[in-house]
Amino acid sequence: MNLVETKPGFDLTLDGRALLSHRPEAPCIFAGKGKERMDMYRGNFDIEDYVVERIPLTHAEVVGDRILLSDHPGQAPRLALTVDGNGLRFEALDASINRLWLRIPAIADETVWGGGEQMSYFDMRGRRFPLWTSEPGVGRDPTSEITFQANKARAGGDYFNTNYPQPTYLSSQRYALHVETTAYSVFDFRNNDFHEIEIWAIPDQIELFAADSFAEIVTALSTRFGRQPPLPEWIYNGAIIGLKDGENSFSRLAVYREAGVRISGLWCEDWVGLRNTSFGARLFWDWQANEARYPGLRQKIAELNDDGIRFLGYVNPYLCVDGPLFKIAEAEGYFATDGEGRTALVDFGEFDCGVIDFTNPAASEWFAEEIIGKRMLDYGLSGWMADFGEYLPIDVHLANSVDAKLMHNQWPTLWAEVNAKAVAGRGKSGDALFFMRAGFTGVQKHCPLLWGGDQSVDFSRHDGLVTVICGALSSGLVGNAYHHSDIGGYTSLFGNVRTPELLMRWAEMAAFTPVMRSHEGNRPRDNLQIDQEAEVLEHFARMTRIYVHLAPYLKTLSEAAASTGLPVQRPLFLQYQDDRATYTIQDSYLYGADMLVAPVWQAAQTRREVYLPKGDNWIHVWTGRAYGGGETVEIDAPLGHPPVFYRAESAHAALFKGINTI
Amino acid sequence: MNLVETKPGFDLTLDGRALLSHRPEAPCIFAGKGKERMDMYRGNFDIEDYVVERIPLTHAEVVGDRILLSDHPGQAPRLALTVDGNGLRFEALDASINRLWLRIPAIADETVWGGGEQMSYFDMRGRRFPLWTSEPGVGRDPTSEITFQANKARAGGDYFNTNYPQPTYLSSQRYALHVETTAYSVFDFRNNDFHEIEIWAIPDQIELFAADSFAEIVTALSTRFGRQPPLPEWIYNGAIIGLKDGENSFSRLAVYREAGVRISGLWCEDWVGLRNTSFGARLFWDWQANEARYPGLRQKIAELNDDGIRFLGYVNPYLCVDGPLFKIAEAEGYFATDGEGRTALVDFGEFDCGVIDFTNPAASEWFAEEIIGKRMLDYGLSGWMADFGEYLPIDVHLANSVDAKLMHNQWPTLWAEVNAKAVAGRGKSGDALFFMRAGFTGVQKHCPLLWGGDQSVDFSRHDGLVTVICGALSSGLVGNAYHHSDIGGYTSLFGNVRTPELLMRWAEMAAFTPVMRSHEGNRPRDNLQIDQEAEVLEHFARMTRIYVHLAPYLKTLSEAAASTGLPVQRPLFLQYQDDRATYTIQDSYLYGADMLVAPVWQAAQTRREVYLPKGDNWIHVWTGRAYGGGETVEIDAPLGHPPVFYRAESAHAALFKGINTI
Repeated sequence: MNLVETKPGFDLTLDGRALLSHRPEAPCIFAGKGKERMDMYRGNFDIEDYVVERIPLTHAEVVGDRILLSDHPGQAPRLALTVDGNGLRFEALDASINRLWLRIPAIADETVWGGGEQMSYFDMRGRRFPLWTSEPGVGRDPTSEITFQANKARAGGDYFNTNYPQPTYLSSQRYALHVETTAYSVFDFRNNDFHEIEIWAIPDQIELFAADSFAEIVTALSTRFGRQPPLPEWIYNGAIIGLKDGENSFSRLAVYREAGVRISGLWCEDWVGLRNTSFGARLFWDWQANEARYPGLRQKIAELNDDGIRFLGYVNPYLCVDGPLFKIAEAEGYFATDGEGRTALVDFGEFDCGVIDFTNPAASEWFAEEIIGKRMLDYGLSGWMADFGEYLPIDVHLANSVDAKLMHNQWPTLWAEVNAKAVAGRGKSGDALFFMRAGFTGVQKHCPLLWGGDQSVDFSRHDGLVTVICGALSSGLVGNAYHHSDIGGYTSLFGNVRTPELLMRWAEMAAFTPVMRSHEGNRPRDNLQIDQEAEVLEHFARMTRIYVHLAPYLKTLSEAAASTGLPVQRPLFLQYQDDRATYTIQDSYLYGADMLVAPVWQAAQTRREVYLPKGDNWIHVWTGRAYGGGETVEIDAPLGHPPVFYRAESAHAALFKGINTI
Repeated sequence: MNLVETKPGFDLTLDGRALLSHRPEAPCIFAGKGKERMDMYRGNFDIEDYVVERIPLTHAEVVGDRILLSDHPGQAPRLALTVDGNGLRFEALDASINRLWLRIPAIADETVWGGGEQMSYFDMRGRRFPLWTSEPGVGRDPTSEITFQANKARAGGDYFNTNYPQPTYLSSQRYALHVETTAYSVFDFRNNDFHEIEIWAIPDQIELFAADSFAEIVTALSTRFGRQPPLPEWIYNGAIIGLKDGENSFSRLAVYREAGVRISGLWCEDWVGLRNTSFGARLFWDWQANEARYPGLRQKIAELNDDGIRFLGYVNPYLCVDGPLFKIAEAEGYFATDGEGRTALVDFGEFDCGVIDFTNPAASEWFAEEIIGKRMLDYGLSGWMADFGEYLPIDVHLANSVDAKLMHNQWPTLWAEVNAKAVAGRGKSGDALFFMRAGFTGVQKHCPLLWGGDQSVDFSRHDGLVTVICGALSSGLVGNAYHHSDIGGYTSLFGNVRTPELLMRWAEMAAFTPVMRSHEGNRPRDNLQIDQEAEVLEHFARMTRIYVHLAPYLKTLSEAAASTGLPVQRPLFLQYQDDRATYTIQDSYLYGADMLVAPVWQAAQTRREVYLPKGDNWIHVWTGRAYGGGETVEIDAPLGHPPVFYRAESAHAALFKGINTI
């Protein structure tokens, strides 16, 4: 990064791009003080800031690589910036500052992406994005009936709510900017001539990444944040079937097999047993096999393995007070406390839990070894949903003495690390597969697979099938190569239930993602299940065969992810950066470089429009018809035949052509 | 006001109260810059501010009565304050400042009231109140189904939305504070140790009023803002009956008379004729009698007058493009323009209107003389609803060249003044009675009667019957002696319709207010009308007889209002300032000093609790039973017998006792 003093003022440039430009009359940094109000209701946050001061730091003095910023000439500097390679380090000289606002030059015709895993808007321009890990909300659209209903329990959410935020963005100006902080922050892309970054702390630094191609920048980001191991070999055997039906899960799995479903795993989140509440059955949050619900489970796992099917379970970072593990953890002091030394209890709906304090190395080690190591991996689990991570209460006291408000965003990464260490400790990296919905900076290094969270069981714009694409594409740009989702969605509330069409449309998208996995949803009995309707089961079976058929191609994508950090699901612009028409597309994606997938994401559609990028010819997999790039085509898309194309020039063309025979 | 320099810093005190206290480490004034986004949708505003700078003016220099404030010692002063009697004048020395925040010392155990006419919260402590005249909203509660539905057209509103805001509050610390500005402002009473006042401009001044008693402060405020003429004599004849049924209105009025209803006026808002739209019939916005809809109207008005019944109409400050008056006004250049000299047109739902520019003296004079004078008063009208006033679009250009954003809040006052001048010009002050829902500072001087706006036809907490009490009490404290409401409410949307119970409960409250007036509502045919059900009509008739019975007492209240500015409907604390239990009561009121009225404001209630203030004995009007003060009593309250008490010691006790014989 290049620092140029302009007297008065300065410019910071990177490869010719002005990334910070300061003049006394147009300062790029404001410092101040705020008092936040933050209320958490079961992972949903109500946050408001009272900005007491917001002072433009108009006066800059450049001394070597260091910039001292103050209100006015002659006033004591409040902030020091130091250029450090492609980073800019921040140092508060006025300890009372707890808010910082940076303005990054922007142009009107600029697109920005990223922000972690964004579920509503892939192109972030024109909107403001708070970056704070939380429940994503139900419906995520305050104008919708479902969100209105959910908001009565403060659970409705909005477009920016996500389990996995990250203060990193990529600009069409061919650079990326990352803010190294765990504090609450906001990316505000609503202005024409600048982007504003708000941080509720003095960040460690901002880091800049510039290159001629978007792909190089994505590679650089994945190098910075860490890459995932390749997909495990067993995953290529088919779909992971999610069933939570106790012993019945095995007989139901047999139905899937008999129907020709290709299966890589059986995932039973109820492997720990159930708890009955007035809301219905919940899992028993004590992380060890419940042989009352799953008699002879180890034998059954072994038998599944003989058939090439792995067994997966469930875990989260809490322990319920009435489970045996709670007593052990409490005796050792492994829980976050309430400030008076007592275990902080969190109400999860008719049962209380302690929060394992992952800032205590002994607690992390215990959880990794005693729970994940001994009770899960050694027991025979090959993977699990590593649920939650976004709920750290902001008022608990932690072993490292850092304010929980500053640890909140980091919690998903710590949680991922505990899981990854447990897996590595058993030598199972790249074989045991856990998947998380929560994330933050650094989760990339530890979490081998994201899952898109708890979509509603519908086609809604802000919480349905289509949001999963947005989640995959945004998280993929910041270093998460692998993304997948619950086939059919998860959240069924206020009478919203799955239709056969939804299940089928979701399955036919999932066939073109790194991992296919089904889920019975939050209310299995109220909702259609894949094995309940012959047409749905048959469709699903065919999709798993397509997935398996594409395994050789998917393996090359997994290898590419390991070597370049490019995600398996890619936004069109990542491969076609000179075609601006691709920049804001969020309802279709490239599956690797050679396939273009345009899922049908609305109900009752049998055709859809698809933009085909300029510079390649595209073959429609179901008809073999060739299309020139650079145009929008309208394609027949009956159930079972979603719009999927491949590059005519692809080395895998023969494989792709074979899809139509399945 | 007393200015004391504390070196560094200063205190401003009034009668021993610290009303501004400044220290470098605890500044009382912040100055800055903001960029607002304001969108109007038919009188509903979506407003957001981007605060670019908020700078504590830490350094104060006192020179005589003048205080110069700057960021730091040695910096150029940004703001000058000058003590001027009990006012503090503001002068910007830095022309770029367009935001100001003041902190007024507060204590935890303090109550604040006022803010103009507030419909949801009488005690404003703990909440934030933007002060901007607008539609109040439908339901006014984002958690309610009706507001959710209304918000689809951005019309739902919230607790702070009101037709009549005013930046004036009264504190239990026995002082009032008024901000003299027409800019958008905010009273923020959420903090324990200070109140924060935000103003989107440099205000002219703040004015302070202190006294030992609340009554003296209210008198001072009414002196400052202007008092209303006494109620007209004819009003004591009974209720104003609102009918908008063309010729049928007269035959329907006869039904009321035959049922024993005491009548002072017939109010026909459709006197101007109708326009058919897809929403249903709307008034034709061209302000002159429509003799097609009301044949022989002058003859009928004369006949009504013979019977002691006045005729009232309707007017608002717009003219529709397809009416004859529009052409005249446009030819004379009386309309606000679009900045290119063309008449600015406002869409009111399938018809466009011009906005009379009341900053043009010729336009105001024309409207007062040609419309209200000749076409209304000379025609025979004795009163009217002077509707609207809160809709001035913020993007029009006005004759006085002031930004419409600064004129928006002032518009209701200008509109009131046009009406008042027209009335005064005909020598009809104190006889012709117009009523307004919109207001702002200064409306008191011109508007003889407030009406509480468009409540929903229900018992809801934030838009039903009970909100009218809050509106009367808050507006009464800042100098509006007379308040009344549409009996039965107005807004019927999304299936919400009047019940007989609602009509009756509303009428039995209205009997104990300065004016009884009925309204058919926005959807007359979908809603129960008083004359459609015998029980309702009989109940209404009795209530009008009670109203007339109390006329001698009401006259004394009207005289007291003229001499002291005390409102007819008074919060309990105004008469019982040593009884803190009265401070937050907003569902009962004193009708003058001697009666306590506690309307039943919820459905299906036949009893309610009533707090009786300490220091008097209270007689329940229906049973004659006496109660000591200082306690909450639970009282039977069947339909027709709302909880009403009178002071045992009242000079009017005999009159009050007679109510029970009606």
